[in-house]
Amino acid sequence: MSQRIVISLDAMGGANAPRAVIEGASIALNKNPNLYFKIFGNQQLIGNLFEQFPILKENYEFIETGTYISDDEQPIKALKNGVNSSMRKAIDAVKENAAVACVSSGNTGALMVMAKMVLGELPGIKRPAIVGVVPNLNGGTVMLDLGANAECDETNLFQFALMGDCFAKIILDKKSPTIGLLNVGVEQIKGREIEKKTYNLLKKSGLNFIGYVEGHDLTKGVVDVVVTDGFSGNIVLKTAEGTARLLMQIMKQGFRNNLSSKLGGLLAKKSLKESFKSVDPNVNNGAMFIGVNGIVVKSHGGAEAIGFANAINVAYDLAQRNINQEIIKELDILQGEMSLGQNIVEKIKKTSARILGIGS
Amino acid sequence: MSQRIVISLDAMGGANAPRAVIEGASIALNKNPNLYFKIFGNQQLIGNLFEQFPILKENYEFIETGTYISDDEQPIKALKNGVNSSMRKAIDAVKENAAVACVSSGNTGALMVMAKMVLGELPGIKRPAIVGVVPNLNGGTVMLDLGANAECDETNLFQFALMGDCFAKIILDKKSPTIGLLNVGVEQIKGREIEKKTYNLLKKSGLNFIGYVEGHDLTKGVVDVVVTDGFSGNIVLKTAEGTARLLMQIMKQGFRNNLSSKLGGLLAKKSLKESFKSVDPNVNNGAMFIGVNGIVVKSHGGAEAIGFANAINVAYDLAQRNINQEIIKELDILQGEMSLGQNIVEKIKKTSARILGIGS
Repeated sequence: MSQRIVISLDAMGGANAPRAVIEGASIALNKNPNLYFKIFGNQQLIGNLFEQFPILKENYEFIETGTYISDDEQPIKALKNGVNSSMRKAIDAVKENAAVACVSSGNTGALMVMAKMVLGELPGIKRPAIVGVVPNLNGGTVMLDLGANAECDETNLFQFALMGDCFAKIILDKKSPTIGLLNVGVEQIKGREIEKKTYNLLKKSGLNFIGYVEGHDLTKGVVDVVVTDGFSGNIVLKTAEGTARLLMQIMKQGFRNNLSSKLGGLLAKKSLKESFKSVDPNVNNGAMFIGVNGIVVKSHGGAEAIGFANAINVAYDLAQRNINQEIIKELDILQGEMSLGQNIVEKIKKTSARILGIGS
Repeated sequence: MSQRIVISLDAMGGANAPRAVIEGASIALNKNPNLYFKIFGNQQLIGNLFEQFPILKENYEFIETGTYISDDEQPIKALKNGVNSSMRKAIDAVKENAAVACVSSGNTGALMVMAKMVLGELPGIKRPAIVGVVPNLNGGTVMLDLGANAECDETNLFQFALMGDCFAKIILDKKSPTIGLLNVGVEQIKGREIEKKTYNLLKKSGLNFIGYVEGHDLTKGVVDVVVTDGFSGNIVLKTAEGTARLLMQIMKQGFRNNLSSKLGGLLAKKSLKESFKSVDPNVNNGAMFIGVNGIVVKSHGGAEAIGFANAINVAYDLAQRNINQEIIKELDILQGEMSLGQNIVEKIKKTSARILGIGS
């Protein structure tokens, strides 16, 4: 039997917790039988859920935590008051090497702050980011930052590109992922100062940087990785989600209009469902807090069991392929190969402790 | 008969020019018979199009311009070399009071630069913006800036809100449009410095400001006006367009999968088409360069005749309702009512000539 992969789960986060978490674990285990879960949560709320998914039996340990972080809790408050929460304990398990990765559908801000606080940054990485896969017909595009850093500088974006490259290699299984920088046009004169500065850094980086991409290129799948700041990434992601929801709503309405359309809807339903699966957020669920010294995967707050299982699969793949060692290695290579990289890494190493209050 | 409304048209801009322009004019005229067009373009390329739409007969004047601005021309080059282009002449007509508004489907950057150069800004307005309507099930949401200013400060965003308010009053026919500031969350601590500063200005403005909105609120139609910088507005708009295109593509694919789905598609086609009309970009076509001292409406580059007609209707409504006088009036009221507004207006009046090289 292959080596056991231990993943810690926050059983209490997200709209469908704890059911989606426990059921999701059982689905993931079915795919990867060498998974083992440390599940943190409230026994009273979990009830007899474990018994409903007997496949889990030999492959989990339940740890009672009593408290949990609510979805609307302020991150700083959560950090202060949530020392014994299911979320915190799941992250602690990664810190203590009791798990190789942690997965939660809970409060994004709280999870990010806790992960940074408990695990710290990877050596050389200035700012962790949220990275995920935006679905499209080309197998998906990795995008970061999805919202961890509202304001960034060019060295942040440069490091996002580097981390996105490693993430895409593992999750999209690409040898040399193409990388694009989000902008308002593809011409070199377009954009803000930060895009121009980042463009120049990426041009010299040795990464497979193809230049600027626009909002519509994301859904076209023009590149494997789209790099942007956390403000832009967040509004792009939410706009895409909102637009998709609106169109689905309109389509459903269209089918309800009259008898003919109702019959048409019935006849096409199965096939349409199949087609839309390729862009189902559940299928593409699982964003990583990349740059943190430990694997923390954020599952969508509204994820169902199948979605949570996919987030576990993402954590599994990232752990199996040693994402963080890959990032450190790539940073080292850049440091050796280009004086630019060296400057950035050196500068970051010196200043990260001061700026972030966290040692490098 | 009501007063004649003269609108100048650039017959040569956009992918479907000149047909979409000439045919679009005929459709608009059918709706508003007091329209009269000054049409600028190349007779050779227009051929016998005018004869194909006899309704135009008494209601247009054609002015041969020979040259026109191509879609990929650099704005600055277009400004320099395009003095006799159809686009430039259409703008000149507004400057010379020969037309109350101008409509073009051509090169956005060139049109913006020319409009600013020829018409100048409205007194007190620091930066013009691109404003348009994003379709949703609540009748659409006005958004600005859609891409004129990649980098903005809080006084720019504050003025965008003010101009968006006037635009929504006219185009959405709302008495007191609700205004939201785009951000990555609705809590007051969210976002960048610029969002926080703008929030404070808007809170005290007397506008119907409801606070922060997110990417998905745009398609939900949570507010009447969404304010953001030109970088964010542009990527949001293009992401929404790209996502909509992707979903339509997947839906069409879903209908093609098998016999049952094909039949379903045939039965539902008409009804679906009707439903999707509410979010058809053609129906919502027509963005304004707001803040410019004259009405310049940008039609989508890919607009068909019906879309171009809608852009003409937008120009017509804005001219009929004296949008620019409304903006000046609202700016004056703010100036009187709040010391804050006064500071901004005074500051802008003093510095706009220096900063923009254009007198106020």
